[in-house]
Amino acid sequence: MGMNVTQKLISDHLVSGEMKQGEEIGLKIDQTLTQDATGTLVMLELEAMGIDQVKTEVSAQYVDHNLIQEDHKNPDDHLFLQSATQRFGIHFSKAGNGVSHPVHMQRLGKPGKTLLGSDSHTCAAGSLGMLAIGAGGMEVALAAAGKPFYVKMPQVWGVKLTSDLPDWVSAKDVILELLRRHDVKGGSNKIIEYYGPGVKKLSAMDRHVIANMGAELGATTSVFPSDEKVKDFLTAEKRGDDWTALEADADATYDIDEEINMSELEPLIAKPSSPGNVVPVREVAGEPVYQTYIGSSANPGYRDFAIVAQIVKGRTIAEGVSLDVNPSSRQTLSDLIKTENLFHLIDAGGRLHQAGCNGCIGMGQAPASGRNSLRTVPRNFPGRSGTREDSVFLCSPEVAAAAALTGKITDPRDLDMDYPTVDTPEPTINNDLLDEPLPLEQARQVTIEKGPNIASIPDFDSLPDELEIPVGLKVGDNISTDEILAGGGRVLPYRSNLPEISKFTFEKVDESYYDRAMELKEKEGGHAVIGGSNYGQGSSREHAALAPRFLGLRVVIAKDIARIHWQNLPNFGVLPLTFVNEADHDKIQHGDVLKLTNLRESIQQSNKINVEVNGKETIQTQHALSDRQIEIMLEGGLINWVKKGEVTN
Amino acid sequence: MGMNVTQKLISDHLVSGEMKQGEEIGLKIDQTLTQDATGTLVMLELEAMGIDQVKTEVSAQYVDHNLIQEDHKNPDDHLFLQSATQRFGIHFSKAGNGVSHPVHMQRLGKPGKTLLGSDSHTCAAGSLGMLAIGAGGMEVALAAAGKPFYVKMPQVWGVKLTSDLPDWVSAKDVILELLRRHDVKGGSNKIIEYYGPGVKKLSAMDRHVIANMGAELGATTSVFPSDEKVKDFLTAEKRGDDWTALEADADATYDIDEEINMSELEPLIAKPSSPGNVVPVREVAGEPVYQTYIGSSANPGYRDFAIVAQIVKGRTIAEGVSLDVNPSSRQTLSDLIKTENLFHLIDAGGRLHQAGCNGCIGMGQAPASGRNSLRTVPRNFPGRSGTREDSVFLCSPEVAAAAALTGKITDPRDLDMDYPTVDTPEPTINNDLLDEPLPLEQARQVTIEKGPNIASIPDFDSLPDELEIPVGLKVGDNISTDEILAGGGRVLPYRSNLPEISKFTFEKVDESYYDRAMELKEKEGGHAVIGGSNYGQGSSREHAALAPRFLGLRVVIAKDIARIHWQNLPNFGVLPLTFVNEADHDKIQHGDVLKLTNLRESIQQSNKINVEVNGKETIQTQHALSDRQIEIMLEGGLINWVKKGEVTN
Repeated sequence: MGMNVTQKLISDHLVSGEMKQGEEIGLKIDQTLTQDATGTLVMLELEAMGIDQVKTEVSAQYVDHNLIQEDHKNPDDHLFLQSATQRFGIHFSKAGNGVSHPVHMQRLGKPGKTLLGSDSHTCAAGSLGMLAIGAGGMEVALAAAGKPFYVKMPQVWGVKLTSDLPDWVSAKDVILELLRRHDVKGGSNKIIEYYGPGVKKLSAMDRHVIANMGAELGATTSVFPSDEKVKDFLTAEKRGDDWTALEADADATYDIDEEINMSELEPLIAKPSSPGNVVPVREVAGEPVYQTYIGSSANPGYRDFAIVAQIVKGRTIAEGVSLDVNPSSRQTLSDLIKTENLFHLIDAGGRLHQAGCNGCIGMGQAPASGRNSLRTVPRNFPGRSGTREDSVFLCSPEVAAAAALTGKITDPRDLDMDYPTVDTPEPTINNDLLDEPLPLEQARQVTIEKGPNIASIPDFDSLPDELEIPVGLKVGDNISTDEILAGGGRVLPYRSNLPEISKFTFEKVDESYYDRAMELKEKEGGHAVIGGSNYGQGSSREHAALAPRFLGLRVVIAKDIARIHWQNLPNFGVLPLTFVNEADHDKIQHGDVLKLTNLRESIQQSNKINVEVNGKETIQTQHALSDRQIEIMLEGGLINWVKKGEVTN
Repeated sequence: MGMNVTQKLISDHLVSGEMKQGEEIGLKIDQTLTQDATGTLVMLELEAMGIDQVKTEVSAQYVDHNLIQEDHKNPDDHLFLQSATQRFGIHFSKAGNGVSHPVHMQRLGKPGKTLLGSDSHTCAAGSLGMLAIGAGGMEVALAAAGKPFYVKMPQVWGVKLTSDLPDWVSAKDVILELLRRHDVKGGSNKIIEYYGPGVKKLSAMDRHVIANMGAELGATTSVFPSDEKVKDFLTAEKRGDDWTALEADADATYDIDEEINMSELEPLIAKPSSPGNVVPVREVAGEPVYQTYIGSSANPGYRDFAIVAQIVKGRTIAEGVSLDVNPSSRQTLSDLIKTENLFHLIDAGGRLHQAGCNGCIGMGQAPASGRNSLRTVPRNFPGRSGTREDSVFLCSPEVAAAAALTGKITDPRDLDMDYPTVDTPEPTINNDLLDEPLPLEQARQVTIEKGPNIASIPDFDSLPDELEIPVGLKVGDNISTDEILAGGGRVLPYRSNLPEISKFTFEKVDESYYDRAMELKEKEGGHAVIGGSNYGQGSSREHAALAPRFLGLRVVIAKDIARIHWQNLPNFGVLPLTFVNEADHDKIQHGDVLKLTNLRESIQQSNKINVEVNGKETIQTQHALSDRQIEIMLEGGLINWVKKGEVTN
């Protein structure tokens, strides 16, 4: 039986497991992508692992998130990233080069390859016929170190595109239509593969728009074929040699079948405050608009700006409207200057910002309280704009342009003008776009630059054979990783400074935790935490495991532990246990001393672990670690595990 | 005897006093300028005064400082400013239009007129033959309300410019030379008037560079003649009709005489961390450079960007250097696009930011810790860049460009190239540059938009005839306005919200002050503060008088009070007294009850005021208020004083 593009990509990279839905498969990773918000920790992890040089074909570090430099922290991070990439053999894209996803597509993406990125929109590279997946920073660090990436084999969801897009309707409306049909969880554990005659009508950058927002459906990734359109794109980028054809076999099938007749689409819009809240624009037409915002990885192409420029050209945007122009890359900005489309945007009243993610991730351009903002970005979660009481709509560039001109939500088909034609020019290949990795001998001479807010990850010890430690904290049910370690502007600036960020650990639950944990670490060699049900739910942030580990956490015993946090704990050397009898939760109190003996042998021989409480009663707990996780746990976490591998290799 | 330009401007606008050095003169103000950081309070003051429409020929409000929108506060302020300007008949320049000084020059500045602005670089408009002075917000509010501006008649310092600038030397080097000779206090109580054959060689925008940084010499303002170059500038801006000639009489003289032979100048640079720390570039050549930064009101012209573009054109900036491009206005940005000079800047590796003040006032572009930053901005005070341990140099665009290419401080004459020629194009007159004031009837219908962080200034009562209030705080010598009410990112976001900003009052001195003052306000009708010597030194910020007044402060008795704060106190209805015998300072303690009787008559009849302490001992104090200040004091501050004038007119 013939294979679809997804199956071809997976089978080409399969190092373990079988392509059976739900079964864990291991994939060889060809390329990695990191951005600055997640990349600093990845670089510190590579350093802690003792990596000499990354083992991927291509690894690239982009600076696109933290571009607002109000003090030394962000620029120090940029210098740190630059020096770390030089040390480890990674491409470095400096601040001003633009958003990782379009830049990676323009410069480094390659059909037929796998890409693992510490950014949820990494899937955008599916536009080139890549298998591109977003993951946690530690997983990307491991991939950079040459380890496979493990994932459960998803279903392949074939979306057949037919016919052609009408005037005033563009790629964004295709993905909004899919969100309208299936909402934000419709893609869970699925890879969306686009095929059919309609695909041939979409440029590679149009496909980027669609693949990028597959993340909003919760899909593992999205995949397009690598065809003539991809060849055209790479050729224009002077990378024609990187092209290879990759298309589904004629008799390929899909686990799920769906069709979108593009000619039947109309301009769509996602209302506040979910990308799945999609309706036709005409249903909300007339509502006043305060801000229209173009840019981000969801509409990053030259076309996406040029079409707006051609719509507003020679006119003046409505009074009181802020038309925020966020160029997505140096190349796009250069092309917009050359064609004078940037002039049209500025002359009409647009407000130009630096190239990068900017307001899409709440870094500037926050709207005024309660005012409607129409954005071409991928997400409108409540408050993501930076304004707590925000009202953000997601739409195509055409819809944003129409609103800028009229000052209210407007179906662009109601503008009294012809649909402009946009010809994409020969792209500018800027001189200084990506620093090339240094040769190894030269790389070894590089000193990693650490500003005052950047601290290496300290060494952690391996799992001792005996632990005798007090309970440092006992919590109830549903403790989230936000309660373990908050995100936000007060905490995140310390993302590269473990000693500092650790001070915020559990502060929402117990303000005295930090001081007590530090004391127990010194006097007792660490502590345990007793959790209730659904312990560690919420965000996947790794700091919620790393920071308490730094403070001496060795064991968590809970009624049950949320999936991602449960994975993160052994990765940082914390043993995750659950009560065999949930009622035993009541038998352990804050301050009790727990004793676990013969631990190293126990976790290998059985999933049952005995815990002696205060030298008296013994309570039975269990672990659910795989053989690989047991190995990691014995070493004291992933960093040590990789380090040991490097030494013995 | 003939008059110089300064004397002509002053005599044309003199409403009180004589043009004798040191004597207070009152000046009619034709135009006012406010920016968003100071303008929000000005608008609240106009509202509190009950102003119907401003009485100037032109008032303009610019949004250029607080452009980073990380939450609702800045965008809410922008909406507030826009609606308030519509209400009061003020031009509004929205975010994205650029820095107030070049935009005012391009659109509204007019030879022969006076301009008062709540920004210290207002003096830049001296380039057009205006008398343009920076002042506090309340003074600008009064001027907008039609009141004269009072200042002590300064000396007129004639600077004769001769010959022509050599290649690679530009206007910035002229003002750096003056700073090299006279340092940052050299211009105190002086107006710098430029004349001579060298002036004819300088474009109006070159003169802006020089006039702008007169502020760094501490000068009251700087003045240029209005000649053919000004005519050329205004004609190009399609405002030829606004031009009038204004030149010194042939036999004019100056209080101080100085000459700069421009042909003898070489590229200069101000080292960290003072604008007066000027040396020839060659003396510091070779030092590594991390950042070069072009833009700001000190080098805002098309030429200042185009020359850099022509120097880096087709080349790539040095690895590790950040070339930050901060366009100064929408017009300049438009012109740079049309001529493709913006392309050259971006293609060489420049990083483009939004049009506005940006990093010049610490809003973005902060350098990495301890790294050298070369900037075309006017100031390099320690930490002003946003980075506490910064290392900022001030220089011309030519010097910044050379450093961007070489990665180290470089005398641009050592670049292996010819000095490029820059022709300024016909400027773009953008459609949407400045909102025109509304007709009065329409203005009266406007509702001022107040987001959740904007609060009107409450009514304050007039001076009671008897005060019996406790001492709420007693402090030592040299308490600065920073200790009364701090600046900085924690406090300043509440600049439009008096109830909120008041919570920070005196917190550095006594954290319990706020709660106590609020209690005393309710129970005792207010409180007094006892100060030592040099009370209220430092920044001129008006909030340091307004916030304690809001908390019930009625009287300050100190050994002596710093000049500007002493002026601000009666402006907001707080009576400033000093001890006749300084030793009496020891006789009053925290909590003592002070009684001042027959107060309204006393301050008018005598400068001596008796203060009864705890109903026992009487201590003698004095005031130094002028008749005008007494009038203001009796009304309870300037707002009430103006309000009463409006009502009785």
